[in-house]
Amino acid sequence: MYYVNENIKDLYRVKFHDERAGVLRLDMNENPEGLPRQFFDSVMAKITPEYIATYPEKDRLVKLLAEHNDTACENISITAGSDEAMRLVFQCFGEQGKKLLTVTPTFEMYDVYAKMFGMKHAAIEYKDDFSVDIEDILQAVDAETGIVILLNPNSPIGSTYDEAAVRKVVERAALVGAVVVIDEAYHYFYQPTYMPLIQEYDNLLIFRTFSKVFSMAGLRIGYVSGDAALIGYIEKAESTFNVNNIAILFAEEIIRNKELADDLIETEREGRQWLAARLREAGYKTLAKEGNFVLFFPKKDSQAVVKELKEKNVWVRDYGRGILKGWIRVSTGAKSCMERFWEALQEVEGHVPYSNAGEEFYF
Amino acid sequence: MYYVNENIKDLYRVKFHDERAGVLRLDMNENPEGLPRQFFDSVMAKITPEYIATYPEKDRLVKLLAEHNDTACENISITAGSDEAMRLVFQCFGEQGKKLLTVTPTFEMYDVYAKMFGMKHAAIEYKDDFSVDIEDILQAVDAETGIVILLNPNSPIGSTYDEAAVRKVVERAALVGAVVVIDEAYHYFYQPTYMPLIQEYDNLLIFRTFSKVFSMAGLRIGYVSGDAALIGYIEKAESTFNVNNIAILFAEEIIRNKELADDLIETEREGRQWLAARLREAGYKTLAKEGNFVLFFPKKDSQAVVKELKEKNVWVRDYGRGILKGWIRVSTGAKSCMERFWEALQEVEGHVPYSNAGEEFYF
Repeated sequence: MYYVNENIKDLYRVKFHDERAGVLRLDMNENPEGLPRQFFDSVMAKITPEYIATYPEKDRLVKLLAEHNDTACENISITAGSDEAMRLVFQCFGEQGKKLLTVTPTFEMYDVYAKMFGMKHAAIEYKDDFSVDIEDILQAVDAETGIVILLNPNSPIGSTYDEAAVRKVVERAALVGAVVVIDEAYHYFYQPTYMPLIQEYDNLLIFRTFSKVFSMAGLRIGYVSGDAALIGYIEKAESTFNVNNIAILFAEEIIRNKELADDLIETEREGRQWLAARLREAGYKTLAKEGNFVLFFPKKDSQAVVKELKEKNVWVRDYGRGILKGWIRVSTGAKSCMERFWEALQEVEGHVPYSNAGEEFYF
Repeated sequence: MYYVNENIKDLYRVKFHDERAGVLRLDMNENPEGLPRQFFDSVMAKITPEYIATYPEKDRLVKLLAEHNDTACENISITAGSDEAMRLVFQCFGEQGKKLLTVTPTFEMYDVYAKMFGMKHAAIEYKDDFSVDIEDILQAVDAETGIVILLNPNSPIGSTYDEAAVRKVVERAALVGAVVVIDEAYHYFYQPTYMPLIQEYDNLLIFRTFSKVFSMAGLRIGYVSGDAALIGYIEKAESTFNVNNIAILFAEEIIRNKELADDLIETEREGRQWLAARLREAGYKTLAKEGNFVLFFPKKDSQAVVKELKEKNVWVRDYGRGILKGWIRVSTGAKSCMERFWEALQEVEGHVPYSNAGEEFYF
C-alpha cells in the first residue's frame, strides 16, 4: 500500500456542498450585493480571450499593494485568498509537534491547518462578557508554541486587540521562536491595522483578503505581508501561478480606486447600524462589535430559526456550542439586504415573546 | 529565531516576473489567441457582481467532469491548475526521503515539488533518438520510490507512453507502494487517455488542466482523477475554496460545449502542421510529435535567436543543456499566429545558411 501523510490520513474536513445562487447569503460574511455595477462593468470590459489564456502576472499588483500599505514589494506576497496564505504559513513555519495558539471561537480553518501540519492547538477561551484576556494569551505563549494567530477583529465575535496587546504577543512570541499572524480579514470595516509593525518585528505576518469589503470571495485573492525573510520563505513554497489573473485585474482596479473602498465601507456600515438598531429596539440581545456581521440571540431555538429563514431563502449561521451556543450570526451589507433579512426574521420570530428583554446589550 | 521547514529554507525557485501583454506568447504552451470571442462573450455575460462576491461552488463542475470522463464524482477533485494538484500529491503521498521518479527533460515543477517535500529525484534520460526506454523507467521503480510522474505526451519532447508501458509502470509501482501520476496536460491535442485505468488501479492519478487546449491558463483550473481513496486524501489537504468561480463557470460551459473543444483542437492542429511544414521545407531539424508545440534547431545560436525574436515581440523558449541544448520550443496555435512567428523567424535567421540540412527529421 502507498504511503499517506499521517497528519492528513485521518484529518476531518467539513466539505462545502452548498448551492446558494439566488439566496440572500448572510452566512459567510460575503458582500450579499457585490461590487457596484458600473465599476464591475468597467473592469469586465478589459478582460479578453487573450488575457485569460495567459499565465497570470503578479508584479504590478504587488507594487500597488506595497504603495497602498506604505511598504516594499519584498514585504508582500499575493495568495489565493487568506486560505492559501494560511496553508503556506503552516507549511513554512509550522513545526510538527509544536503548538498553534489562537482564541476560541475564531475562524475554524486555523485548527484544520494545525492538524494538517501535525501541530497541537491551544485555544484561549473568551470570558462571559465576550472579552478575551490578553494575559491569558501571553501566558500560553511558551517554548512549545510555533505559531500564534489572532484574527483582528475576530470572527464570529467582533472583538479587537489594541496595539499594546499585539506588541506584547509578538515580542513574547519572538522570545520563544514563534511566528505571529494578525489576520486582518475584516480590515477596512475596522480601520486600525498592525501592518506598520512588520517593519519592526521579523516574526510578524499580516493577512489581508479581497473576499470581504472588496466583495470578491469568488475570485480567491488576498495577500500576506511581513518581514522580507518571512515573505521570501512563503514565496519559496508558493506554486508558480497561485492566483488567477481576473482576480489580479479586479484587485489592481480596486486598489487604484480609493473612493470605491469608501463607498463599500459606508454601504455596509449603514446596513449594519440599521440592523443592529432594529434588533435592539425589538429587545434582542445583540453582539455587534467590529466586522461585517452582527450576532443576536433569537427568541426561538437558533437551529429552528436558521432552518425557517433558509426556507425563505435567507441564509444565516448559528452556533451549537461554547460561549456562542444559541446565537446567530448575520453577515451585514447594504440596507436593502438587511431589510429583506429583517422582514424574514420577523415572519419567523414575530409571535414569540422575547425572553431575554432587559439583558445587557453588547453594542 | 523561528523555525523554518528545512526543505523550504534553501529551496531554489525561479520566480516569474515577465510582462507579456501585447506580445506573441509562444513560450509557455498557452493558446496565443484564446477562446473564440462569441463563446467567451456568452460566458462573460453570465458573470455578475453578486456571482464574484460569492464563495465558489464546485459540485456542478465535478458532476459534469465525472460524466465527461465516464467516471464518478468521488474520482475527481478540482484544483487550481495542475500546479495545485501536484503540490497536493506531494503533500499527501510524498514521503520524506523517498524518491520521485520522472524522465528528463520534463516539466520542471516536478523537481521543485520533490525538493519542497524532502524527496530525492531520480530522472531517466532520453536516448539520442529522443525516445525513452520504458525498461529504464521500470528498473528505476524500486523500494525507495514514492511517486512516479509521467507527463503524457511529455513536454518539451512530445513523446508518448503506450498503454502497455503505463500499465507496467503502475503495476510495478504498486508492488513497491508508490503512487503514479499520468499528467495529461496536453490531452485533446493528443487523444489517447489513461483515465479509464483509474478504475483498475488504486495507485494511479490522472492530471488534466484547462490551461492548454481550453485556453484558460490565466484562470487556474484543472482536476485530478483517481481511485476514490486517493482523491479523498487529496480533498482532505485542499483548502476550502481552492478554485475561483469564474474559472468554474468557464469550465462548465466548455465541458457542455463539445464542438468548442473540436474547434480548438482543429485550429491548433492546422497551425502546428503549417509551421512544421515550413520548418521542414526550410531544412530545419524539427521535433514535432504530440502537444501544442514544435521544437526546431536554429541556424544561429539559440539564445541569440530567442533574444532577437523577443525584440520583435515574439517570445519562444530555448534549452541550455541536456539533449535539447540549442533547441527552441515554439508553442503552436492558430495559423495566423504561426505566420507571424514564421515571418519573425525568417527576419532573424534569413541570411544564415542552415548547417544541419540533410539530418534526420523527427516528425
